[in-house]
Amino acid sequence: MANLTSRSFGSDNHAGVHPAVLAAIAAANKGDAIAYGDDEISSAAQARLCEAAGARRAYFVFNGTAANILGLSLLLRPYEAVICAESSHLNVDECGAAERLLGCKLLPVQSPDGKLTPALIESRLTGLGDEHRAQPRVVQIAQVTELGTCYSLVELKKISEYCRSHGLLMYIDGARLANAAAYLGCALADIAGHADVLSFGGTKNGALGVEAVLVMSDVVAEGGQYHRKQLLQLASKMRFLSAQVSALLDNDLWLQNARQANAMAQRLAAAISAEEGIRLAYPMQSNGVFAELDRERIALLQRDWNLHIWSEAANGRCVVRLMTAFDSTEQDIDELAEAISKTKCFT
Amino acid sequence: MANLTSRSFGSDNHAGVHPAVLAAIAAANKGDAIAYGDDEISSAAQARLCEAAGARRAYFVFNGTAANILGLSLLLRPYEAVICAESSHLNVDECGAAERLLGCKLLPVQSPDGKLTPALIESRLTGLGDEHRAQPRVVQIAQVTELGTCYSLVELKKISEYCRSHGLLMYIDGARLANAAAYLGCALADIAGHADVLSFGGTKNGALGVEAVLVMSDVVAEGGQYHRKQLLQLASKMRFLSAQVSALLDNDLWLQNARQANAMAQRLAAAISAEEGIRLAYPMQSNGVFAELDRERIALLQRDWNLHIWSEAANGRCVVRLMTAFDSTEQDIDELAEAISKTKCFT
Amino acid sequence: MANLTSRSFGSDNHAGVHPAVLAAIAAANKGDAIAYGDDEISSAAQARLCEAAGARRAYFVFNGTAANILGLSLLLRPYEAVICAESSHLNVDECGAAERLLGCKLLPVQSPDGKLTPALIESRLTGLGDEHRAQPRVVQIAQVTELGTCYSLVELKKISEYCRSHGLLMYIDGARLANAAAYLGCALADIAGHADVLSFGGTKNGALGVEAVLVMSDVVAEGGQYHRKQLLQLASKMRFLSAQVSALLDNDLWLQNARQANAMAQRLAAAISAEEGIRLAYPMQSNGVFAELDRERIALLQRDWNLHIWSEAANGRCVVRLMTAFDSTEQDIDELAEAISKTKCFT
Amino acid sequence: MANLTSRSFGSDNHAGVHPAVLAAIAAANKGDAIAYGDDEISSAAQARLCEAAGARRAYFVFNGTAANILGLSLLLRPYEAVICAESSHLNVDECGAAERLLGCKLLPVQSPDGKLTPALIESRLTGLGDEHRAQPRVVQIAQVTELGTCYSLVELKKISEYCRSHGLLMYIDGARLANAAAYLGCALADIAGHADVLSFGGTKNGALGVEAVLVMSDVVAEGGQYHRKQLLQLASKMRFLSAQVSALLDNDLWLQNARQANAMAQRLAAAISAEEGIRLAYPMQSNGVFAELDRERIALLQRDWNLHIWSEAANGRCVVRLMTAFDSTEQDIDELAEAISKTKCFT
Repeated sequence: MANLTSRSFGSDNHAGVHPAVLAAIAAANKGDAIAYGDDEISSAAQARLCEAAGARRAYFVFNGTAANILGLSLLLRPYEAVICAESSHLNVDECGAAERLLGCKLLPVQSPDGKLTPALIESRLTGLGDEHRAQPRVVQIAQVTELGTCYSLVELKKISEYCRSHGLLMYIDGARLANAAAYLGCALADIAGHADVLSFGGTKNGALGVEAVLVMSDVVAEGGQYHRKQLLQLASKMRFLSAQVSALLDNDLWLQNARQANAMAQRLAAAISAEEGIRLAYPMQSNGVFAELDRERIALLQRDWNLHIWSEAANGRCVVRLMTAFDSTEQDIDELAEAISKTKCFT
Repeated sequence: MANLTSRSFGSDNHAGVHPAVLAAIAAANKGDAIAYGDDEISSAAQARLCEAAGARRAYFVFNGTAANILGLSLLLRPYEAVICAESSHLNVDECGAAERLLGCKLLPVQSPDGKLTPALIESRLTGLGDEHRAQPRVVQIAQVTELGTCYSLVELKKISEYCRSHGLLMYIDGARLANAAAYLGCALADIAGHADVLSFGGTKNGALGVEAVLVMSDVVAEGGQYHRKQLLQLASKMRFLSAQVSALLDNDLWLQNARQANAMAQRLAAAISAEEGIRLAYPMQSNGVFAELDRERIALLQRDWNLHIWSEAANGRCVVRLMTAFDSTEQDIDELAEAISKTKCFT
Repeated sequence: MANLTSRSFGSDNHAGVHPAVLAAIAAANKGDAIAYGDDEISSAAQARLCEAAGARRAYFVFNGTAANILGLSLLLRPYEAVICAESSHLNVDECGAAERLLGCKLLPVQSPDGKLTPALIESRLTGLGDEHRAQPRVVQIAQVTELGTCYSLVELKKISEYCRSHGLLMYIDGARLANAAAYLGCALADIAGHADVLSFGGTKNGALGVEAVLVMSDVVAEGGQYHRKQLLQLASKMRFLSAQVSALLDNDLWLQNARQANAMAQRLAAAISAEEGIRLAYPMQSNGVFAELDRERIALLQRDWNLHIWSEAANGRCVVRLMTAFDSTEQDIDELAEAISKTKCFT
Repeated sequence: MANLTSRSFGSDNHAGVHPAVLAAIAAANKGDAIAYGDDEISSAAQARLCEAAGARRAYFVFNGTAANILGLSLLLRPYEAVICAESSHLNVDECGAAERLLGCKLLPVQSPDGKLTPALIESRLTGLGDEHRAQPRVVQIAQVTELGTCYSLVELKKISEYCRSHGLLMYIDGARLANAAAYLGCALADIAGHADVLSFGGTKNGALGVEAVLVMSDVVAEGGQYHRKQLLQLASKMRFLSAQVSALLDNDLWLQNARQANAMAQRLAAAISAEEGIRLAYPMQSNGVFAELDRERIALLQRDWNLHIWSEAANGRCVVRLMTAFDSTEQDIDELAEAISKTKCFT
C-alpha cells in the first residue's frame, strides 16, 4: 500500500496521466454542459475516433472490462458462446463478468502465444445446431494479446475471413490497440476493419480513465445506448471522458505514446535478452517484455522494483512481465536492465 | 448538442468540476502508483470517508447507478425483492439495470412526495414465505429523493427501526447525500447509521465523476471487491477517483458545496414562489426547485434556458425541475428569477 | 398436508388427470423412442396443435411459469420491458422469474378487472428512446386473466392493432386459454392470431403436466430450441408430454373439459349470487367464481372446504376464489352452494 | 423422426417408463390434492428419499439439467466459480444453462476418464483472493461420469476431504446415481454423505420424468423453494412427480433397475470386447459401453440400430456409446452383439 519510489514495471496501469490529457480535462471545465454525452466535446470526440477507425459508432466507457462486456453484449444472443484464448483477459482477469452480466459461455482455446488461428477456432466449432450446446457465435481476440504478441494484418485477415465464411462475428479487445498499430505501422482502421466490434483503450495509453467501444456497422450498434446505461457505463459528466479521447487524438498523441512504450520495451528486451540465464518467453511485439529467469533473481529484484510474476516455468524458473508505459524513459529502462544484470551472480 | 451559453438549471450534472477537485487530480499525477486501489491515496480516502460516515468499507465507483447496483448486490439473494418508491431513480431512470444485473424484482410504492414510510413499506410486505412470491428484503430510499425532499432524522429512524424489526435491510441512495446533510445540519454518520449500505455521491457535488458505496458492517461487505469488479466498477488508475473524494473531504468541501447549492435553490424558490401563477410542487429541502407553471411560460423560458420538464400537471400546466449546483451564484439565480418573472404577462 | 376428502375449489390445479390423458401416456409407453422430442408422437402433437392455433411452432414445456418465461425470451432484448397488469400471474405469482431469468423490467398497470386496454398500455409508453429507461416492447395479457375475466375478440383486436401500430409485440398467457375459447365460442386460432407468442395450458385442462409455447412466426421462433433447453424445459422423454397434448386434442377434449369447468362455475355463480350478503367481484367469464362475503362465513366454510382467499375487501369482507375444473360435477357444485347457503345465518 | 423398431442403444433416455411407475401415477390420480407439493404423496416421497440418502431436503424437479442448476444455485454466490470436468454434462450438454441462469463461471479440467482428483482440482485453485478472478467455490463431479466411469468410495472420500480442507463445496450430478450405487454395492447415503448437494436421477432409471435435488444440510437448503420456483421447476400437480419417486423407492426398484442396466452393459462389453478390432475406451463401471471401432462398422450398424457416436479416435476409428437401460434384456444385448460381430468382415 506504499507509494512507489522507483519506476514500476508491474503494469502499464501504474503510470499516471499524460499532461496533455490532464490539460484537456481542465480545458473542458468551462461552464455548464449537457450531461450524458449530449455536448459538443463528446460529439466531436466520437466523430473523430469513428473517422480514425472507420467505425460507425463510438461509446466511451470507464474501463477495459466494461468495454469488452458492452462490446460483446451487442453481438450475442442469450444462447450464444464466445471462442477466446484460454489466456485472454476476458477469460482470466475479469472475474467472470462475461458469465455474470451476459450469461454467455466462453469456449477457451489453448494457444501457445495467446493468439487464435482459424484452426484453433475450428477446434471449438462443435455442436452447431445441437440444442444441447451453447452456439459459438463470436470470436474474441485481443490485439495486442495478454502475452504481448500482436496479430499481423495478414493473420487478422485470415481470422476475419474465416469468421465471415462461418457465420461468426469478431470482437477485438483493444485495450492496447494503440501499441498494436504502432508495432504494425498501420492505421487504426486497418485493424478495426476486420472486426464487427472492438475496443480502443485510452487508459493504458496515457488517459486518466476512458476506453471506447467501436461499432463497425449501424445494425450492430442498435440499442447500444441502452446496453451502455444498463451496464453502468454512462458517465453523467461525459465531457471529461470525451476530452481525454480528443487529447489522445490531437497530433496522434495516442501513436506517440504507444511508440514510446513499445520502443522502451524493445530497449529493455535488447538489454536483457543477451544476459545469461534470461530467455524471452514470447516474441516482443508491443510494450510488454515477458522474461523467464530464476526465481531467486526475481525475488532480489522485487526488493526494489514492482514486477509482476506472470507464470511459473520449469526448473524453479518464472516468467516475469515487465510492462513499459507512454512515459517510460531510457533512464528507467537502463536502471532496470542494470539491476537485472546485477542479479546474475545469484543464478 | 450545442454548448450552453447561459447557466443550466436542467441538472446538477451540467455543472463542471470544482477547482479543488481538479487540483487534487493533478496533484495525484506524480510518479507511478499501484493500480486498482492498492495505493496510498486510495487507502487514505477510503479511511477518511469511512470515518466520516461511520462505515466499515468504502468502494469507489464511477456513477450513481453503479453505486446503487453494487450496493444492492451486497444485500440481495436471487429471490429477494426491493421495496422502493415508484418515482425512485432506481425504478425509473436506471434503464432496468437492477433487473438486468441483479435479476431482482422491484416492488414500487406510490408516494406523493417521493418518501417511503413504514406504512407504505408495509403495503408491499405481502406473500412472505410464499414460494410463488419474490421475498421483500431490502427497503431502498433516496436521501434526498428524486423530488428534492429530504427525510428528517426522525423519519429515518422510524424506517430503520421498522426494517430491523421486520427482517428487512435498508439501502440509501445518496447521490445527493451531501445536500441532505447540509439541509438537516447533521453529520454524514447521522444518516448513514440508519442504513446497512448507502451511497455517497461525489459527482453532483463537484467531482469529475466518483461515487462511494459505504457498507456499515463487515459481514455485509464480504465479497464486495468481487462484486465491484464484476459490475465493471474497478478503476485501474483508482488514485484519480480517490483524489476526488479526498478533495471533497478536505475542509468539508462537500458540505460547503452542498450548502451553496441548497442556498441558491432556496433563493430561487423564494424569488419565484411569490410570483402569481407559480406553485412549488414539493417542499424545498435540497437543491432542486420543482415549480408548477403554465406550459407557455416554460416554452418561453426554454428559448434561453436549459430546463427539465419533470411532469405534467392539470390544466395545461407542468412541473419544471430547476436544479442548482455547487457553483451556482446569486447572479445566476437572480437572472433566472427575473426571466421567469418576465414570462408572467403571458399567463 | 392431509389429502383432501371433499372436492377442492382452491385451485384448478387440485384436480387430477383426465383418464384419456393417462391412457395416452400409457399408450405412448411402447418400445423405445428418440429422446428430446425427435419422435413421432411429439412431431404429430406439435403439428396438430400448431394447426389448431394457426401457429408456426409449438414448444412443450413443464409448467405455466416456464411457458411465460420461454415465450417472453423470444420477444425481448436485454433492455426491453414488459407492460402487464399489476395483478398478472407474471408479476405476482412467479417469484420474480421474469426478472431473474430474463433480466427484464415489468411495467405493471393497475386494472380493475385484470384486463389491459390501449389506454392503459399507453399510460406506460413513456421514455421511448430515452437511454435511461427500459424500453417498453412487449404487452403481456392473460386470456383468461387472473381475475377470471375474458377479453372479447373485439378487445383483443383493439389491443393487437394498438401493439402493431406502436412497435409493440404481444404475448398472451394462455394458462386457461381453453376456458377462454370455450367462453367465447371461438377457435384457438381466433385468439392466437392476435399474439406474436402465446401459451396454451394443458395442466389445468386435465393434463398431468404440460403447457405449450406457440410461436406465430418463424422469425420469432428462431433459436427457440436453445432458449427452451437453457430455461430447463427440454424433456428427455418428451413423448410423454406430447401424448398428453394429443389426448387433449383428440375429439376436442380440451374444449369439452373447458366447457365443463366453465359450466360448473356458472352453476355455482348462479346458485350463490342470489344469496344475501354475497356479491360477485368480477364478471363470470370462465371457470373461476370470485365471491365477496363476510370473513366469518369463509372461516366456517374452510372447516370443510379448500378455498383460497383472494383479497381483502371493505368492512371485514373478503373475496374468495372458487375454481372449478374439468371434472367438477353438478353434485360438487350443489354441495358447495348448499354449504355456502348454510353459513348465511352467521352474517 | 421415425419410431424405433429395434431396441435403441443411443441413450438410456430412449427407454420408456417402468410399469410400476406408470401404475403409481395412475394410483395417485384419486380425488383432489393440494398443488405444488403440499400433499401427502409428496411429503412421503420426500421423506423416504431423504432417509435413503441421509439428506435433509429433497426437491423434485423436471430434468437433469434443472437438477444441476438448482443444486448449484444453493451453493454459489454471484462471483463464485465451479470446477468441473471438461467432459461434464454441465459443461458440454446443458447449452450454457449454468452461465445463463446462474451467471457463474465454469473452470473445466481435462480428465482422461471423466473423473476429477484432488490434484486436478488443485490445478484450478488459482487466483484465490484476487478480485480479478472468479473465486473457485464448488467442485462439481458426476457419479457416474459422462464416460461411464464411477468414483470408488475411497476416491469420493479423498475429494470431499480435499474440498472441506480447502473451503470448497461439493456437488454431485447423480443423473445415474442409481447405477453408481449398484456398481459400488453401496447405499445412496454412502455416496451422498460426501456431497453438500447432489441430484438423484429418476428419469434414466425408469421414471417418466423426475429428478431430485438432495440437500445435505438445513443451512444450504435455505431458500431452496424460491430457487426452485424461479428456476421453473415447481410442478403444480406435484403428486405425479412424487408418485414416481415413491415407485422407484418401493422394494428398491431403483436398485433393481440400475442393476439390470449395469448387468446388461457388462454382458454387452463381455461379448464385444473379445472381438478383433474393438477396444473399450473406458473402464466398464455402469450402464454405458464406450467401444472404439472402425467408422465403417459403425455406419453399417447404424442402418439397423440407434447408436450415438461419442467421439473420433485415431486412424479413422470412432468411439460409439452403447447405453443399456432398466428394461434391456439379454436378448437385446445378444442381438446387438451378434450384429456387431457380423460387421467384423468389413474391417
